[in-house]
Amino acid sequence: MKALVLEEKKKLSLRDFPIAETLGPYDVKIQIKACGICGSDVHYYLEGAIGDFIVRDPMILGHEAAGIIIEKGEQVTDLALGDLVCMEPGIPNRRSHEVMEGMYNIDPEVVFWATPPIHGCLRETVVHPAQFCFKLPKGMSAAEGAMMEPLAIGIEAAKKAALKPGDTALVVGCGTIGVMCAISALAGGAAKVFISDVKQEKLAIAGAYDKNIIPVNTAKTDLVEFITKETGGKGCNVIFEASGNPRVYPDFFRCAKKGGKVVLVGMMNGTVPIDVAFLQGRGLSIETIFRYINCFDRAVALVNSGKIEIKRFISKTFPFEEAIAAYEYAAAGHPEVVKVMIEL
Amino acid sequence: MKALVLEEKKKLSLRDFPIAETLGPYDVKIQIKACGICGSDVHYYLEGAIGDFIVRDPMILGHEAAGIIIEKGEQVTDLALGDLVCMEPGIPNRRSHEVMEGMYNIDPEVVFWATPPIHGCLRETVVHPAQFCFKLPKGMSAAEGAMMEPLAIGIEAAKKAALKPGDTALVVGCGTIGVMCAISALAGGAAKVFISDVKQEKLAIAGAYDKNIIPVNTAKTDLVEFITKETGGKGCNVIFEASGNPRVYPDFFRCAKKGGKVVLVGMMNGTVPIDVAFLQGRGLSIETIFRYINCFDRAVALVNSGKIEIKRFISKTFPFEEAIAAYEYAAAGHPEVVKVMIEL
Amino acid sequence: MKALVLEEKKKLSLRDFPIAETLGPYDVKIQIKACGICGSDVHYYLEGAIGDFIVRDPMILGHEAAGIIIEKGEQVTDLALGDLVCMEPGIPNRRSHEVMEGMYNIDPEVVFWATPPIHGCLRETVVHPAQFCFKLPKGMSAAEGAMMEPLAIGIEAAKKAALKPGDTALVVGCGTIGVMCAISALAGGAAKVFISDVKQEKLAIAGAYDKNIIPVNTAKTDLVEFITKETGGKGCNVIFEASGNPRVYPDFFRCAKKGGKVVLVGMMNGTVPIDVAFLQGRGLSIETIFRYINCFDRAVALVNSGKIEIKRFISKTFPFEEAIAAYEYAAAGHPEVVKVMIEL
Amino acid sequence: MKALVLEEKKKLSLRDFPIAETLGPYDVKIQIKACGICGSDVHYYLEGAIGDFIVRDPMILGHEAAGIIIEKGEQVTDLALGDLVCMEPGIPNRRSHEVMEGMYNIDPEVVFWATPPIHGCLRETVVHPAQFCFKLPKGMSAAEGAMMEPLAIGIEAAKKAALKPGDTALVVGCGTIGVMCAISALAGGAAKVFISDVKQEKLAIAGAYDKNIIPVNTAKTDLVEFITKETGGKGCNVIFEASGNPRVYPDFFRCAKKGGKVVLVGMMNGTVPIDVAFLQGRGLSIETIFRYINCFDRAVALVNSGKIEIKRFISKTFPFEEAIAAYEYAAAGHPEVVKVMIEL
Repeated sequence: MKALVLEEKKKLSLRDFPIAETLGPYDVKIQIKACGICGSDVHYYLEGAIGDFIVRDPMILGHEAAGIIIEKGEQVTDLALGDLVCMEPGIPNRRSHEVMEGMYNIDPEVVFWATPPIHGCLRETVVHPAQFCFKLPKGMSAAEGAMMEPLAIGIEAAKKAALKPGDTALVVGCGTIGVMCAISALAGGAAKVFISDVKQEKLAIAGAYDKNIIPVNTAKTDLVEFITKETGGKGCNVIFEASGNPRVYPDFFRCAKKGGKVVLVGMMNGTVPIDVAFLQGRGLSIETIFRYINCFDRAVALVNSGKIEIKRFISKTFPFEEAIAAYEYAAAGHPEVVKVMIEL
Repeated sequence: MKALVLEEKKKLSLRDFPIAETLGPYDVKIQIKACGICGSDVHYYLEGAIGDFIVRDPMILGHEAAGIIIEKGEQVTDLALGDLVCMEPGIPNRRSHEVMEGMYNIDPEVVFWATPPIHGCLRETVVHPAQFCFKLPKGMSAAEGAMMEPLAIGIEAAKKAALKPGDTALVVGCGTIGVMCAISALAGGAAKVFISDVKQEKLAIAGAYDKNIIPVNTAKTDLVEFITKETGGKGCNVIFEASGNPRVYPDFFRCAKKGGKVVLVGMMNGTVPIDVAFLQGRGLSIETIFRYINCFDRAVALVNSGKIEIKRFISKTFPFEEAIAAYEYAAAGHPEVVKVMIEL
Repeated sequence: MKALVLEEKKKLSLRDFPIAETLGPYDVKIQIKACGICGSDVHYYLEGAIGDFIVRDPMILGHEAAGIIIEKGEQVTDLALGDLVCMEPGIPNRRSHEVMEGMYNIDPEVVFWATPPIHGCLRETVVHPAQFCFKLPKGMSAAEGAMMEPLAIGIEAAKKAALKPGDTALVVGCGTIGVMCAISALAGGAAKVFISDVKQEKLAIAGAYDKNIIPVNTAKTDLVEFITKETGGKGCNVIFEASGNPRVYPDFFRCAKKGGKVVLVGMMNGTVPIDVAFLQGRGLSIETIFRYINCFDRAVALVNSGKIEIKRFISKTFPFEEAIAAYEYAAAGHPEVVKVMIEL
Repeated sequence: MKALVLEEKKKLSLRDFPIAETLGPYDVKIQIKACGICGSDVHYYLEGAIGDFIVRDPMILGHEAAGIIIEKGEQVTDLALGDLVCMEPGIPNRRSHEVMEGMYNIDPEVVFWATPPIHGCLRETVVHPAQFCFKLPKGMSAAEGAMMEPLAIGIEAAKKAALKPGDTALVVGCGTIGVMCAISALAGGAAKVFISDVKQEKLAIAGAYDKNIIPVNTAKTDLVEFITKETGGKGCNVIFEASGNPRVYPDFFRCAKKGGKVVLVGMMNGTVPIDVAFLQGRGLSIETIFRYINCFDRAVALVNSGKIEIKRFISKTFPFEEAIAAYEYAAAGHPEVVKVMIEL
């Protein structure tokens, strides 16, 4: 079938690629209708690797997708042919200890699309377990469905933050994941969400979403001073670190309210400095997230309810035929872009 | 000063009432501008008692109030003369074990307005600790401020429910507290809230608030069947029992999702039947609430953000001079009324 | 193979019973060495049913067992031939939502030994998934291993209680499960555990275990008065209801400390009365348990460390040949008996 | 009265010191019988300061104490003259937000013994709020009572760790606080506790306490390798960092089980490196502690039950007359010493 293939670092082809997939009794076959481009996809494209995950053989990209069910296994009862679904891209080993302990996201044997050597889903069809497919309600498009993957990360972060109604939150970093955290925190109970970055275009997009998302341009404004003043000296109940930028550490901790919670979402290489005595004196705790656990149905429910409006973050759409151009566009790093979408 | 006095069961006077209050260094004096009528006020009016709390001497009613600071103690730094504030009506004994353990709401020595023998605040002025007064932001009226008290109960319920973003909730009972739970749950992360009652007028008010609040008239519809069907057989993540009606037990538990949480908000005399084996097989847990802990600032923040719209629930307003008529109106139990407000 | 078969209500045979079990790649075959008799086994023996679980065909009894691995599947790497293991008797459907959500214990498709129509393990050999077999350290006997099943229930109860170091606990009911709760609570952080019952023999066994387990004979002593006095009026941080006796409700709640937790362990038919207003005024919450989640390794670790001594609760041991006599002995309900064990 | 006074850095006097203390209605006057020497006392003695806390005027040292009540205020009902009590040394401002939010330990206005400019309690008598005095049961000595203060830190750490029965824990650092964490973790539910340090004498003391405390000399043994091997590759459920030594970061995190919890107890200046991606991939969370919240009664209960044996950690005792020698001895840093005690 036709697929977008990363032949090697910096070399993409849109070409026929032989894939033999068997439909098991609990699986569905999906005709892909939309697939977003994630920062990790771009990273593999430009660098050929992320940490220890190295692209050694041609690999199909893409893991944020939605499509229509065109075939289903005999044991699938919850979904029907023709259903438009979005897909959770990582399938754990159901025999793992991690699954039995309720943390399937960190099963080391998870099979995750577009993580070498596993192929992604930017292709005509894909076979996937029905349990990891989520029916989109009427009114949601395939492109919106493809957005459920990044949104699920924001939902996971908000879930782990254990937000209480009326909390004040701070999101450090206004990239795609930062924005997902901000809108999830707002939908998840926060009354006000500050979001900081140095890129004004990104901050403008976040700020336009809702008057309760307050952008802070840290190229111009001292974050700690600003938050301190805006919160009457109290600080934020919850902080999401979503920049993955070591330089924001350990300052942003000073924006936390006593007894507050910090959720580390952004990933990075190497270590960051933490001021333990400061954390102790302020009674802070830290949670970390890795992908998501049972968040896709939550993401769909919040979009369907209108509590989250996701469409506006699809900044530009390309047809499948122009998938390479889409990747080049995404790789160019336009600051006003949140998500580049490919439609099939 | 002039006050609304419950002379005895069923006998109200609006008259001068001598009250000597000393302004301590941490106190403020507030000129009352608005005071809502609570179900408990009506209960004292009609019955002269609630359980062991018996009105033996003339008592001023009212505990849901807002007003303007007209005097302040020398140690008060957070508030200024002229500030419009709402007030948390119960002051715990700061030396109690309950306070030290973070549950000041159940300190047995709490001094709570309009709970005999403590006078309420439906009078010209009142002295109150500044820590239990919350400044209302620009744009919030005194009447809205008076609504923070019932809303705080909804916030406490939503807080104890530990809602996760995208949850589905059920509120049993569409009285004032039920509605406060529903709107708090929605603001606190729920994607959808069912609310059940037998009074169509009340359900209509709740349903008109937001399309994600779905009324269920249990005079016509079987609750368990309906919820089961609407949730695809899964049930609700969180259930708030807000009716205080023993007859809804234990059926509503059958609307809970596996691993779900039930928050008991409604109070009642006597016992209710619980099916322990059912709870066990479904992995349910139960939380109870009593008033609120640190919820007023959360309530104000959510109204200020627009995430909660509270004004519409002020069904009818009377001037202070007609306070007795207001109580008679409230006591009549008009089903389309959520809150009766008195303005001074 | 030879097995103890419940032919029908009140009729046991020790006879050859044909069982065809296939060893899958992740399974082990175990030669059973010890099997305890549970209250549910006795119930099936005497009544032929527990609720909706009806013994319609001859069924092998027994689900508390340990044995030696005599064969293993090719994918089994954690266990070796000759290992002495105890077994968790319920295997969930790994594709269920409950498993993915970390609550495999309430998966409705769980396959649990000696729950009709599933055969139990009181037989020569059994095939079981390796993941549900737990190696016993040197020094632990097969009979002790068979005790891990009831102990796991106590561990689950203590886990859900979220005990804090130095808590005071109350266990209502001094049957086998009550004792398991008491010793688990003590090992799990409680400084003192009260345990109540009307049977002096049972209380004596519990009281002899540790000076910090304090028996209360409620045939002679008023429980609420006693606990109130012994705790200086404060009550217990945690209460385990382990009697399954509706008559203890709702009184035992009055033994709870403010903000305390009640764990409902005992199962029963029908409903019990709960005083909601009392729970609210005292700030109580309720947890329920059903079997156990990831507790067997914890049980083994605590016995191995010596923090729990389990051997003494094996009251009487019968050889396999006298299995029917063992059941008759267990069914006789000797009050001084905690556990009847069968050794093979 | 006679007191041990730090006149200035490195200069101690045992001399008459004028202190005027008024006994309020909720206070007791205590005749001090025993007072331990804490690391912070030694630090003030040797350095004259800890961070921003600078000894500018002569200050009485000591904050780990027990004594006999010799006078009491009229509102004190829980304690009697002649009672032997230990004392929690920090009194929060009861009007603070921190108190109302259940975290009185981090109230910035807390008045804490021997933290400049507040005098300590190594003197003949002291006046203290009765609520912060804890009656010692029969059989506990004043010296044991004085040990409740360091033990309370261990209890707080174990409480925040939310230990589950049968957990495996690691304590990094075998100083006094490390040992308190280890014995609290064991009493609080852990089945096994590893404790690491480079000082063999300290490890020997911890290891002699209980066979389930397993010393690891990291001068000779690689900690991560050792823990990995001993836990079958799984790691520890809970890690307590109690060394306050930046060099142990971030390696000890590699000893954590997936989904595990790390409790930061040890204080230090500056920052430490944290590997965020590692924490995320392993699903770890971090808690911090600062002193204790409602832990003294828990400490007393656990010692009274025998679940914690504290006496052995009183390494050497000096009479009050030799208090200066006691400080010199403590300052010498004998590795086999856990606690130096002064008796009055």
